Amino acid sequence: MTDPITSTSNPRIKDLVRLRNRRHRDRSGRFVIEGYRELDRAARAGITIETVYACPDLYLGGNEPGLVERLMGAGAEVIEVSEAPFRKASYRDRPEGLLAVAPHFAVDLDRVPLDGEPLVLVAESIEKPGNLGTMLRTAEAAGADGVIASDPTTDVFNPNVVRASLGTLFQVPVAVGGTPEVADHLRRAGVRTLASSPDADTPLWEADMTGPVALVVGSEQYGLSDEWMNAADEVITIPMPGAVDSMNAAMAAGILLFEAVRQRSRES
Amino acid sequence: MTDPITSTSNPRIKDLVRLRNRRHRDRSGRFVIEGYRELDRAARAGITIETVYACPDLYLGGNEPGLVERLMGAGAEVIEVSEAPFRKASYRDRPEGLLAVAPHFAVDLDRVPLDGEPLVLVAESIEKPGNLGTMLRTAEAAGADGVIASDPTTDVFNPNVVRASLGTLFQVPVAVGGTPEVADHLRRAGVRTLASSPDADTPLWEADMTGPVALVVGSEQYGLSDEWMNAADEVITIPMPGAVDSMNAAMAAGILLFEAVRQRSRES
Repeated sequence: MTDPITSTSNPRIKDLVRLRNRRHRDRSGRFVIEGYRELDRAARAGITIETVYACPDLYLGGNEPGLVERLMGAGAEVIEVSEAPFRKASYRDRPEGLLAVAPHFAVDLDRVPLDGEPLVLVAESIEKPGNLGTMLRTAEAAGADGVIASDPTTDVFNPNVVRASLGTLFQVPVAVGGTPEVADHLRRAGVRTLASSPDADTPLWEADMTGPVALVVGSEQYGLSDEWMNAADEVITIPMPGAVDSMNAAMAAGILLFEAVRQRSRES
Repeated sequence: MTDPITSTSNPRIKDLVRLRNRRHRDRSGRFVIEGYRELDRAARAGITIETVYACPDLYLGGNEPGLVERLMGAGAEVIEVSEAPFRKASYRDRPEGLLAVAPHFAVDLDRVPLDGEPLVLVAESIEKPGNLGTMLRTAEAAGADGVIASDPTTDVFNPNVVRASLGTLFQVPVAVGGTPEVADHLRRAGVRTLASSPDADTPLWEADMTGPVALVVGSEQYGLSDEWMNAADEVITIPMPGAVDSMNAAMAAGILLFEAVRQRSRES
């Protein structure tokens, strides 16, 4: 076993801090998973974990040692870290004593299964990692077959995506692609695309969301691109009776997904 | 006009920093509104503004001076602040040059109009100000008649509530009360209460959300109290076909509210 880390200037701690930076993540092809729940979901999903950094003094409950053992059994290197360097490496105000480094996993379009009658969420150019993470969590709750980030502004390996997704990033199939490529991929698979726009006339509940369907939502600031508006089979809207005509992008995705859940539950 | 503030140790800057603290807010009966959009909504809603702190060097657009003039016309004191002290007072990473102090406004239960066929959101013991703010924004978009914070853990004047609400805190009627008092108030007004729980059997879309209705959602961590579960006229659930059986509290509120929008749009 590697010696415990006790110094905040240990090169591994510095590496963890650098992994907050997208360029460093992209270059090294690795990312950070922090927290018990997140790491537990990664382990259950069979995500390869390279190294686990454990600080038992910060554990909140009694399940952490078992999880660390499972990860070690699956081939992860485990390094104990004392509190000061752990806090330096942690992304959180209240660290839970578990942090891991994993190699990027594949996010090709064929990761999302499109056979049968899939329900897919497509999110274009989402800027805020928290929104992308919330979309993943909500898509998982809705039983969606996958989430496709089209022309993403934030990368799916951003620590705040991992966090806001509560680790569902490892459960729901995730893919990334350029907008024309994603639209083409869905069209060839026979998946109908429903684009959401504040300017459309058809309320979401009048669109047919049964069968193979992809719900397409745009960025927080700019909405959907013309590219998507033209490529989509149908353009729908979430009617807003209130004075405010904007909605959080993740909220819009959730309302669309659960309208699909409603329609699809009646079908069966 | 008061002299411009150029020092970070100016007592007014220190007061603004202290207003991040709930105890100081409660004691002084004042709170902070930051940002152009938020302050614009407050002004349109006729919220009394005590003092405006303006840092023109940080303005993002050309509309700020007009807004400052409107606020001054409505009786606000306006103080110019140079960049360093403004950044110290600001709650944001990228301040927009506008910050104001306002006296707390009334949040009694009778602030929420219950005549006719109101749609009300009741949020119990919400812990995260961001969630309460998102609920306000979504309730406003859904055209809800009001939001009631029942046994609130976070106060509605928290700067992150103002921020996440995008200023809709000033548009949608907001009230605060203890759970028994809120339940009783709604019952006496003839408003049906639908409590949301992961353990209920009735899917939200099978409940009648037309007529006078209050949708009741619980806290992030504990869900609804037994008190609410017993007081509610009906207990409903958001069916989650996925493996994850939890959902962000604000997301749950949004899905419920827009199911009500769907049902109520068919009625008319």
